[in-house]
Parts: sequence; C-alpha cells; structure tokens
Amino acid sequence: MPFIRTPQNTPLNNAPISSHAVKPQVSSIEEEDRVLAAGMLAQNPALVSMIQGRLGKLIGRSSGYIESLPPVIRRRITGLKGVQKEHSKLEADFQEEVLQLEKKYFAKFKPLYEKRRKIVNGIEEPSEEDITAGTAEGEDADETAKMDEDNAAEQQEVDPGIPEFWLSAMKNSTSLAETVTDRDEAALKHLVDIRMEYLERPGFRLIFEFSENEFFTNKTLVKTYFYQEENGYGGDFIYDHAEGDKIDWKPGKDLTVRIESKKQRNKNTKQTRIVKRTVPVESFFNFFTPPKPPTSEDGSQAEDEELEQRLELDYTLGEDIKEKLIPRAVDWYTGEALQFEELEELEEGEFDDEDDDDEEASDDDRDEDDEDSEEEDESGKPKQQEAAECKQS
Amino acid sequence: MPFIRTPQNTPLNNAPISSHAVKPQVSSIEEEDRVLAAGMLAQNPALVSMIQGRLGKLIGRSSGYIESLPPVIRRRITGLKGVQKEHSKLEADFQEEVLQLEKKYFAKFKPLYEKRRKIVNGIEEPSEEDITAGTAEGEDADETAKMDEDNAAEQQEVDPGIPEFWLSAMKNSTSLAETVTDRDEAALKHLVDIRMEYLERPGFRLIFEFSENEFFTNKTLVKTYFYQEENGYGGDFIYDHAEGDKIDWKPGKDLTVRIESKKQRNKNTKQTRIVKRTVPVESFFNFFTPPKPPTSEDGSQAEDEELEQRLELDYTLGEDIKEKLIPRAVDWYTGEALQFEELEELEEGEFDDEDDDDEEASDDDRDEDDEDSEEEDESGKPKQQEAAECKQS
Repeated sequence: MPFIRTPQNTPLNNAPISSHAVKPQVSSIEEEDRVLAAGMLAQNPALVSMIQGRLGKLIGRSSGYIESLPPVIRRRITGLKGVQKEHSKLEADFQEEVLQLEKKYFAKFKPLYEKRRKIVNGIEEPSEEDITAGTAEGEDADETAKMDEDNAAEQQEVDPGIPEFWLSAMKNSTSLAETVTDRDEAALKHLVDIRMEYLERPGFRLIFEFSENEFFTNKTLVKTYFYQEENGYGGDFIYDHAEGDKIDWKPGKDLTVRIESKKQRNKNTKQTRIVKRTVPVESFFNFFTPPKPPTSEDGSQAEDEELEQRLELDYTLGEDIKEKLIPRAVDWYTGEALQFEELEELEEGEFDDEDDDDEEASDDDRDEDDEDSEEEDESGKPKQQEAAECKQS
Repeated sequence: MPFIRTPQNTPLNNAPISSHAVKPQVSSIEEEDRVLAAGMLAQNPALVSMIQGRLGKLIGRSSGYIESLPPVIRRRITGLKGVQKEHSKLEADFQEEVLQLEKKYFAKFKPLYEKRRKIVNGIEEPSEEDITAGTAEGEDADETAKMDEDNAAEQQEVDPGIPEFWLSAMKNSTSLAETVTDRDEAALKHLVDIRMEYLERPGFRLIFEFSENEFFTNKTLVKTYFYQEENGYGGDFIYDHAEGDKIDWKPGKDLTVRIESKKQRNKNTKQTRIVKRTVPVESFFNFFTPPKPPTSEDGSQAEDEELEQRLELDYTLGEDIKEKLIPRAVDWYTGEALQFEELEELEEGEFDDEDDDDEEASDDDRDEDDEDSEEEDESGKPKQQEAAECKQS
C-alpha cells in the first residue's frame, strides 16, 4: 500500500493565535530542567547530577550508535549541536516576536469585544453598518426590514441585549459544555462578559464578569495561566501553572459541593439522627480551583496519569476560552463555529464521559449501616442529570 | 466529579513555526466554498444553491432556537455577526503578519542550515566555537580533546562528513520512519540535504537533494504544498493541494513498484509460461505522488474516508519535515528530539501498523489458477520486512 494509517500527529485544532504554549509534559519539564541546570551547575552540582540521572532515562535512544562512530565524526556531530543551539536562540526570539504580534492584534480586537459587550448587555443597539455586514448573502433583506418595523412595538416587551448569550456560547463549545452542569446554568446566566488580558510576564488571564446573582458576591472571577519564564524546545512557551479566584459563595449556594443528608438509625435505641456531609461535585466553577502540577517524584503512576489528565483538561479549557470562545463568541452562540471543529474532536467530545463516574461509588457504602440516605443539593432542587447518571451504573 | 476525560483538543504537536495551515476538511472546504460563494453569487447561482444545500447540513445546529427569538434580539445577533466579520479580517491580517515573521526568521535560519549542509557533506569541518557550544555541560572535556589528537591520524581513513545523516534523522522521526522501507534506505543514503523554501503565493516547497545514485537521475526531488488563496475560519491558512516532482527512475530501479513474476501452468498442455506484472508497493518515494483532494461529491463514504486519511498523512509528513526535521535535524539524527514528542504520538506511531495489510489479500487469489507464484523485487533482493508481515496474517 502506498499509505499507512495516520499517526495522529497533526495538530487537532488550529490555534488562531499563534505563539504556542504547551503543557509541561515529562518531556518539556526535562527540557526546562536542562535549561535551569545550565545556569545552576556551579551552585548546585548535586541537583544537576540528579537531573542528569533523570535525563539519562530518555536520552540515548540511539543505543550506542553514535558512541560507536569514529571520534572525528562525533566531533562533527558536536559541531552541529552547537549550530543547533544558535538556531534555538533564534526560535525563542521568533516566539517572542509572535507574542508581541498577538498583543498588537489583541489591541485591535479589543474595541470589537467592547462593542460586543455593549450589544450583549443591552447597553447599545448594533449599528446599521454592523447589521448590513452581518446579514449573510442570500439572506432575506425583507426579513431584516421587517425586524426594523417591529422594533419600536417590541422594544418595551423584550429583554435588553441577548439573554443567556455567554451561557449558550459555552454550551455549544465542545470542551466547555461538558463542564457545565444543570445547576451551574442558573449562575452562568448571569455572565455579562468573558474577556482576556495578557500578563506582564508570559501568560494570560481570563476574566468572567457577572451581574448580581444569588450564588456569589464576586463581580468577576479570574483564572490566570502562567507560562514558564524560559522557552522550551523549539522556542515554545510552556505552561507553568494556573491560579483561580476564590469564589465567595453565598450561604448554601456553593455549586461545587452538595450536602448529603443521611438519616442514621441506632440499632439499639431505634432513634434516628441526621448526619450531613459536604461532597464535592462536578461543576464548571471547579475551573477556578485548578489542579497543581506535580512538584516531586512522589505519587504512583496511576495518580500521575490522573493528574496529568486533569492538568491537560485544565489547559485545554483555558486555551479553548482564549483562542476560540472569546475571539468568536457569536459563532459559538449560534452554533456555527462547531462546523469548523475537526471531526475527531466532535466525536470524542460528544461520546465520551459515559462511564467511570468514580464519585458515585459512594452509593454502595450507604446501605451498609442500616441507614436511609437522602441526597439534596443546597438549593433543594432535584439534580436530574446526576440522578440519571446514577441509574446507569 | 470535578474533571472529565480529556476531549483531545489540545494540539498534539506544537509547531515551532506559527502561521497555521490546516487540512481542508469538510469544515474548511465549506468555509472556502462560502468565501467563493460570496464572490461568485452573481455568476453562478446554481453553484451557490448547491453549496448552500451542503452548508444546510452543517449549519443550523441550534435547531430553531435562534429563529424562535424576537426579531429585535435576532437583529442584535445579526449585528454581532457584522462585528465578527471585522474581527475575521483582522485575524487574516494577523496570520499574514505571522507568515512574514516566519519568512524573516527563515532568512536568519538559512546560514545555519547552509553550515549544517557543509558539515554533513564533509565540505567543511565545524568551527571550534561550534564544538564548544555543542559540548554539553558536564560532558567530558578530555574526550573532546582526545578527539582532536586522534583527528590527524584518522582523517584519511574516515568518511567525509556524517554518513547517512538524513536517512538516520528520517528513521528517528515518528511519522517519516513509517514510510521508509528497507529498499528505500539504499536510495535515501544518498541524501545530501533536505531544505525548504517559501513560495511567492502562500505555501512552501520541500527540496530533497541527492548525490549521484543508482536509482534515479534527478539531482533534487521537490514536493510543493500550496495553501488556498483565501484564509479560512479564524484566519488560518488552508491546504489546497500538493505536487511532487516526477522521479526519473533508472531502468528496473523504481522503488515504488515491484515486479511480480508468476509461473502459470496450462492445465491441458502442462506447459508453463512466466507472467510479469508491476505492483505498486509502499515506499517513501510515493511522497512525490501525493493524493488529489476530492473535487466533486462522487465517491462512497468509505472512499472519502480513505482519501481523507491519505491526505491527512500527506499533510502531516510535509508539516513534520518543514517544522521538525529541517529545523532540528541533528536532534533527529541523535534521537534526542524524540523526547520532546508528546507521548501519545510516540505510542500511536510505534504500535500502529500491524493489521489490515489490505494488499496482501491477493495472496488468496493466486492458488485458484493452479499456478506457482514467485515474487521478486526489481533488485532481486529478498524483501524481508514485507515477508515477515505476510506471515502474520
């Protein structure tokens, strides 16, 4: 056959903004260590020797081939490595210039985002120019005219702006939709704006602005992604860690937990008492308490993998909000942006997430102690979605 | 649960060079169609109506929600679409500026690539500065000194340059390695250089330079990737198609085919005759006859998928050569670059490709006609790798 199965190494999504940040996998962490090691050699030989030990596991895949070459050829290879180092410096400069270019264009995008914010929140109506520009070729011009006539009559009765704009946009976004629970929606309806800012150091912050609501007192919730100071292999920026704002939940309104009330009956006295405990639950708002990258070598391999997955998801969500949701929110709101997602993504995104509801395992524990157990979330509403999930297992 | 399985929508590899080109999937083809449609509306309404029919399948996921909104709100949404169009123009400008930045840096990389070419081919020895820069921290300085002493003595006996530099680099690259057969290696040993150039229009060409060899007369083999003239959604460049040089194979040396000789015995006369036929085989050199993107709607879904996969592989190979192999060839040669590949990629790349040897199905056909069949490739050498694969099925 002339062609083989594809090794899936094309980028699955195409970041519209181009300076890259990659998650600090084993590989890039090692690279980072190497860069650090170079600077810290004199100060801390023990550290360097530890790092070299770790590197040894990965380097040397050539399994002796290069070592077996005549010295004069090895010398040429060493020379090429020197040339490559010059190249790497240029690559880092390039990524830096791309980042500056991003910032330059971000400044041009900003007034458009501001206009969007005003239209979405009913502070401003769109201009005739924007409506003409936004009317698709072939779309009924009469229809638009008709809207105009109806306007005056309707204006009073209709909500200002575009209701649930950001919630709807999030629910159409493949990765974000999966984090939004039914309970979250009541809070996310209050989203006034989602925007971003670049940090002074490499990184960015995502700002979620809310109108007054029954859930928390924060006016904005901010999630900040920090890149490492040193560029990685090929000049890419590397994620360092993320931080989120503490959410000031109003009493009994924390969407990231639920209260389990259990009636316990004493087997001897037959008296009952009610025990309440707080159980963490799935919620978009967990986005603001991101996982911490591993700092040392402790942790089992399974734990490492789970943490790695959680970190990857956290970066993915941040990246999707920065590169897709914010730049083209109206296309997410209408659902048109979905057609530009690569198919693999859609399939995986839509049909994942059925099994492995680990936290439901606690169901089994409840019967043990002759106790009636009742679940209620803090707002007292039934949790339909999660109930359905329980039945599956 | 606070975190769900990852929907794999982070870029699996991080392109060091940043203006994006994406393969023209259904989605981006549709986008392209839309752009074309806008310009061609007046000239060809039938075409536009056909295209709109296709778009209809994808757009409208909101299933009536937006249509159900009061006209004044729909008007605001139309206004936001207008704002979004301004944003799209800026995004295209941004991608254009990134491409210019790429070209600016490419000019800085070029002298380094030229130096590499000279060292690899024994035209020049590396400078002392390059060797010092290329000597890793902690690496034995005495060792390097020792190389120097040995140099004079060895210089005569040893090959000039770095033998099989590009072949070894290719064989360490996950995606490329899978395309290189045992037979190909004899030809790829003659690679003198792999380099790239940007086209005047959006796109690039990969240039494979060979020394004189027994396989073909071309001094260079060129593969050109063309992007579409219009940017796609989010300003990305979109692959249009690729073209490859015709390879002038020396007689009997075509690595992309093999000659099957079959002895056929006439059942009545018991006389035998030998029938030869040319069968296409897997070879890296098929890279120069890339698949053609679909132009119309014919073709079954299975055919479409197969073509889509072949196109994706072709783009992946081109991208990997442009973004990974050429920029950091020495790291591929030594294998060090592998550690910076994302793990998923390695796993998939290394353990794929076992089953589904479709073309081996012809084995079954041969017995039917009472014929002895013998395979030989044109050079008469046994094809160990392929033989091994046959046994598995």
